[in-house]
Amino acid sequence: MTTSLPSPGSSARTGRPTSPLGLHRVLDPPGVLPQAAWWLDPSPAIAPDEVRVRVDRLNLDAASYRQLRETYAGDPDKIRAAVLEIIATRGKMQNPVTGSGGMLTGTVEEVGPGSPLGLAPGQRIATLVSLTLTPLLITDALRRWDGQSEQIPCAGHAILFARSIAAVLPDDLPIPLSLAVMDVCGAPALTSRVVKQGNVAVIIGAAGKSGSLSAAAARRAGAGRVIGVVPTETEAALLRETGTGLVDEIVIADARDPVGLAEKVEKAGGPADVTVVCVDAAGCEGGAILSTKQGGTVIFFSMATSFSAAALGAEGLAADVTMLVGNGYVPGHAEFALDLLRTTASVRNLFERRVES
Amino acid sequence: MTTSLPSPGSSARTGRPTSPLGLHRVLDPPGVLPQAAWWLDPSPAIAPDEVRVRVDRLNLDAASYRQLRETYAGDPDKIRAAVLEIIATRGKMQNPVTGSGGMLTGTVEEVGPGSPLGLAPGQRIATLVSLTLTPLLITDALRRWDGQSEQIPCAGHAILFARSIAAVLPDDLPIPLSLAVMDVCGAPALTSRVVKQGNVAVIIGAAGKSGSLSAAAARRAGAGRVIGVVPTETEAALLRETGTGLVDEIVIADARDPVGLAEKVEKAGGPADVTVVCVDAAGCEGGAILSTKQGGTVIFFSMATSFSAAALGAEGLAADVTMLVGNGYVPGHAEFALDLLRTTASVRNLFERRVES
Repeated sequence: MTTSLPSPGSSARTGRPTSPLGLHRVLDPPGVLPQAAWWLDPSPAIAPDEVRVRVDRLNLDAASYRQLRETYAGDPDKIRAAVLEIIATRGKMQNPVTGSGGMLTGTVEEVGPGSPLGLAPGQRIATLVSLTLTPLLITDALRRWDGQSEQIPCAGHAILFARSIAAVLPDDLPIPLSLAVMDVCGAPALTSRVVKQGNVAVIIGAAGKSGSLSAAAARRAGAGRVIGVVPTETEAALLRETGTGLVDEIVIADARDPVGLAEKVEKAGGPADVTVVCVDAAGCEGGAILSTKQGGTVIFFSMATSFSAAALGAEGLAADVTMLVGNGYVPGHAEFALDLLRTTASVRNLFERRVES
Repeated sequence: MTTSLPSPGSSARTGRPTSPLGLHRVLDPPGVLPQAAWWLDPSPAIAPDEVRVRVDRLNLDAASYRQLRETYAGDPDKIRAAVLEIIATRGKMQNPVTGSGGMLTGTVEEVGPGSPLGLAPGQRIATLVSLTLTPLLITDALRRWDGQSEQIPCAGHAILFARSIAAVLPDDLPIPLSLAVMDVCGAPALTSRVVKQGNVAVIIGAAGKSGSLSAAAARRAGAGRVIGVVPTETEAALLRETGTGLVDEIVIADARDPVGLAEKVEKAGGPADVTVVCVDAAGCEGGAILSTKQGGTVIFFSMATSFSAAALGAEGLAADVTMLVGNGYVPGHAEFALDLLRTTASVRNLFERRVES
């Protein structure tokens, strides 16, 4: 699927042919991607490949909410007015200072006949693409929001493009739990693609949300040994208590110390065929590379990863390792991660401890 | 090969068992990797898996040389004294301000019986690992250096570890040309691993050094179509003049404009199975992702790549692409790149125009 293949139809407001990426909804500046746009068209009429969602909740990105709260000294009326103003002027919720957005939940209202998303009216969904590129219109002035948290109950609608990502919220799990799983669902999906039968998998940050799911995914993919790295005895205890089977060995190590980490991983049965970096700490690149076999693979899921530290680190260590940028999108990732949670008691235990229901 | 497998022998000065990574040469702080160390031991006596090189030239990293020149207002004596001081106190040439090093050329002097590097005394080599991790001792006070360029003629010695990387300088090519090829040799080697028979390959920055080598590597790997992206008509003319066969199509586009780039690439026969980013400009992540097929691969070689822009960009575009951090080390990369230069007239033409001999 590519940008310039027009879907049938065109936008009345911009006159541009409808595009799977939503280019036809971009009002200003014209020709850029919706995420880069200042102003999107949130009109409710959908193109043949679009979906309209009745929104019931916005989940602001933590950085965005913090900036708003600090700017307005926690005054709820001012924070509410600021968010309304952003959505009204931009046609999307993208904080102009932080550049970040968040996600939303809602109910599918109308599905265009050409939409490839597989949604049906009445389904409760969460969007897995950012609010920064999602056309949004609010109709209740955010009246029910107290401005005290990044969770905004609201009424209005949002538009999904052909290439948006949304996941149906399952009936059998509490919504906060499902959202927490969906938030990190790219990690287990990519881990599952990369790990092969009999591999040694090292999960750095194994007691965390993306880490525990990645450990379960490595196991299901046939890993012969799963080594979980955690920073402290507290985290190790948490991992031990959640039950058996998630990891074969627990290593307590500072992932920012390459030599120390690699030595401990080796004692635990390493080095790894596949190392998955799931901790949001800077400076873990060298340790991950050094804990991985020549010919192995490192998957970086931490947003604190430095591209140059990874590239130069591998060169400096003469490490012939494949290094993957953890792509948050793999088809079917949400369903896969939810299934891992349902079928792996230890993962579910960990999530229930970490997520407020 | 892993860290804690000790090579036979140990360092007299640190008492640590010799390690393929050179941990035994780290004087301060103990236990860190040589690159992270403040002070290395450059003693000439080699461990069984080490190699000693008689150094004839240092090539300072551009950022490091610029910092020195600016700090000392271009005064040659002060610049020379500063570099000598760094090497004498640190046992390596790592600019403490920029953190960067450079590389060196020299002649192999002594090879330990356990060295896996395949070198023999008398060979002229270049190091392909950074000076920031190479033990170095200077014996001529840099007397022959005028301080006016980052090229430092000198006398002294350097130590290579088992896991260092060095390449023999070929007799049939001018040294500056060989060094320019070796500087970017990771890109064609990794491109060659990833591109499959019949693939569409898009090379962003195809008229540059790493770009032209990557185009030649894609061709040799069996690419059915090679599309070269360049930023200007001047670069396009350069690519056209170098002769036929390097690329099938030339696209002039701003790689920082995702929609514009993807549309032009598609008209030229894209989207790509494999996109290789070889331009050192920030903001090319989205364009590279959008120019690549679902299921395709993007290889990022630009040090200006932003990890988070790549990860979030792919997610925002619902792009199921594999994204690789361009590892500068692939076994045999220097020989492979030199061979491409020798056998591809267009690459050689381009390099000869870009490299001062």
